[in-house]
Amino acid sequence: MVQKVIDVVGISTQGFAKAAENAVTTAAKTVRDLKWFRVAELEGSIKNQKVGEYHATVRIYFDVEE
Amino acid sequence: MVQKVIDVVGISTQGFAKAAENAVTTAAKTVRDLKWFRVAELEGSIKNQKVGEYHATVRIYFDVEE
Amino acid sequence: MVQKVIDVVGISTQGFAKAAENAVTTAAKTVRDLKWFRVAELEGSIKNQKVGEYHATVRIYFDVEE
Amino acid sequence: MVQKVIDVVGISTQGFAKAAENAVTTAAKTVRDLKWFRVAELEGSIKNQKVGEYHATVRIYFDVEE
Amino acid sequence: MVQKVIDVVGISTQGFAKAAENAVTTAAKTVRDLKWFRVAELEGSIKNQKVGEYHATVRIYFDVEE
Amino acid sequence: MVQKVIDVVGISTQGFAKAAENAVTTAAKTVRDLKWFRVAELEGSIKNQKVGEYHATVRIYFDVEE
Amino acid sequence: MVQKVIDVVGISTQGFAKAAENAVTTAAKTVRDLKWFRVAELEGSIKNQKVGEYHATVRIYFDVEE
Amino acid sequence: MVQKVIDVVGISTQGFAKAAENAVTTAAKTVRDLKWFRVAELEGSIKNQKVGEYHATVRIYFDVEE
Amino acid sequence: MVQKVIDVVGISTQGFAKAAENAVTTAAKTVRDLKWFRVAELEGSIKNQKVGEYHATVRIYFDVEE
Amino acid sequence: MVQKVIDVVGISTQGFAKAAENAVTTAAKTVRDLKWFRVAELEGSIKNQKVGEYHATVRIYFDVEE
Amino acid sequence: MVQKVIDVVGISTQGFAKAAENAVTTAAKTVRDLKWFRVAELEGSIKNQKVGEYHATVRIYFDVEE
Amino acid sequence: MVQKVIDVVGISTQGFAKAAENAVTTAAKTVRDLKWFRVAELEGSIKNQKVGEYHATVRIYFDVEE
Repeated sequence: MVQKVIDVVGISTQGFAKAAENAVTTAAKTVRDLKWFRVAELEGSIKNQKVGEYHATVRIYFDVEE
Repeated sequence: MVQKVIDVVGISTQGFAKAAENAVTTAAKTVRDLKWFRVAELEGSIKNQKVGEYHATVRIYFDVEE
Repeated sequence: MVQKVIDVVGISTQGFAKAAENAVTTAAKTVRDLKWFRVAELEGSIKNQKVGEYHATVRIYFDVEE
Repeated sequence: MVQKVIDVVGISTQGFAKAAENAVTTAAKTVRDLKWFRVAELEGSIKNQKVGEYHATVRIYFDVEE
Repeated sequence: MVQKVIDVVGISTQGFAKAAENAVTTAAKTVRDLKWFRVAELEGSIKNQKVGEYHATVRIYFDVEE
Repeated sequence: MVQKVIDVVGISTQGFAKAAENAVTTAAKTVRDLKWFRVAELEGSIKNQKVGEYHATVRIYFDVEE
Repeated sequence: MVQKVIDVVGISTQGFAKAAENAVTTAAKTVRDLKWFRVAELEGSIKNQKVGEYHATVRIYFDVEE
Repeated sequence: MVQKVIDVVGISTQGFAKAAENAVTTAAKTVRDLKWFRVAELEGSIKNQKVGEYHATVRIYFDVEE
Repeated sequence: MVQKVIDVVGISTQGFAKAAENAVTTAAKTVRDLKWFRVAELEGSIKNQKVGEYHATVRIYFDVEE
Repeated sequence: MVQKVIDVVGISTQGFAKAAENAVTTAAKTVRDLKWFRVAELEGSIKNQKVGEYHATVRIYFDVEE
Repeated sequence: MVQKVIDVVGISTQGFAKAAENAVTTAAKTVRDLKWFRVAELEGSIKNQKVGEYHATVRIYFDVEE
Repeated sequence: MVQKVIDVVGISTQGFAKAAENAVTTAAKTVRDLKWFRVAELEGSIKNQKVGEYHATVRIYFDVEE
């Protein structure tokens, strides 16, 4: 068995954990058997001198049947 | 056009996202045209054997007019 | 005086800050004089295509009397 | 909203900027809403003791509608 | 010409080289013109206090015709 | 004698070297005795599916009289 | 629940996978509930101009009951 | 409360610790409430085939009142 | 045979080498067969605008009999 | 067969690609069978407040007959 | 006494440990007093959709008499 | 003009700065026009539970005439 990895940037106005959750939720729409994620980068946009959105770039691992 | 980058350590008792937000809020008092931030380090103080404050060192990018 | 460092993976369903807090809370049961922590890695398990638990691997620094 | 990231190696005989541009041009043929790229690695082949081709491995971010 | 890169986690009970080989073998089923791989991470599961499986996360480069 | 370091993101439509040059040119308007720069990151915006601008984040070292 | 992490250097004359296995085997003698390892460094001694021993520094994760 | 970070290259003929000290001494002339430093890079010039000066690039953290 | 690794922060007012030595001296009180150390981080406290103490975080390797 | 690697800093007033090319050209004078290069660092000197020369530190791989 | 370091890419069809061994064997033909190696990178070529050769880039340390 | 880079491990019982100086002194015996060095790693041997020797692995840059 192998796993594949995709990189997704989750975005949220609520924080980094929610941003990571959004990345997983979106990946789940097109990829099955998601298993694990690892945060690669945490960033954010600033609008009108305030944090606009939190961005969490996550590497998502999923099982692949051979 | 160019951007400049400053490093600010935001501090909060509530979590890493709030700590990053505090960094941005403080930077906004002295620098205009903030655009983006990237988390460089997440740390925290421990007091009486509990998390005291969350620290988020963020690199903040802002536009500079030439 | 010196400090020692231990690596602990805190786990939480609520987010990365809570996961880091759990790591500190557990370390506090067996080690005295905790002072500081630094996040080494943020990860998470995925169950039924949703985030299961947030994992924060933190390096915890504590004072050691000589 | 989320973003996804793909890694593409652009190749050019003219330099690193052109190599990065080729990576973006190729990605644009199969992916919509490209937004940003970040250089991950710069390399090159050597042929007959001279630079053959410049290679720019770029991470390309694109918007994904949910 | 460009190359694209995919990240695959090969898994094997025999060792890291075999794990990398399994990653390449699986990638070969869905992607043509594989050229090169680079190891990004070596890990492993532990079961009953023994190494269960070796995991090799490899970045696999393949040619793309434009 | 010491040196200080500032981080500037130079931006150009022509390439990474020109982007770095723009960073230096802008720094030169407000800081004296620039000596050296080191590239920290190369990035770029994408507009209408083409490279918009090349960004070079450079760390610029300058002498400071004590 | 939390996990703790210890760093162990496994040593073997047979290769890196066997060296990692030796690290796990030794850790298993004093620590329960080992779960996962990650290779941090691969090195080796050279004796009489030949590889003497392969060294695999592995970070070993184990469950801790609270 | 927040902290800000500046990067200063201390220079000394006596060694790395003295170079770091010089960086702190210079920063102290223009910035108040210095708290901590972290070494980012250790380098040195070579003159007449001998070490000329030791350079310590340090990141210096200081408190900022809001 | 295997080795284990512990992380210790040596502290000294005299410099980084002395700080590393203090880390080793303290480790020697509780661990036998110390063999090697590697510097992971150099830092320092600042008091009254001067360097207070130099901190050297060292990874210390020691032999473990099986 | 094996390859060896040398590190060369190419220097040019025209840009990073030309600097890398100069590194390869110089290496070609004393080493045969050059195959590949990888950029390790991009830097530059500043003279009279303008970019003086671009420096590209490249790792050059070449075949060695056994 | 000092040590010098050379970078060699060992190549083998059998695995990473054998590739590292080949690097050491080749270095031993031209350099005396080899002492230690550290793996810098693990890669591999792919031919006909299968692993062709494993490549281990190793940094080899050897003693130099003054 | 180009520069080349060699990696040398300086060793000293007195500290890291002296170890780096020894690396430069040895390089000066066989290479001309040394210009600059950068510390890549700081390590040390431990003998009889005390620091034996400090090791500084330095990358040394020197000018090469074409």
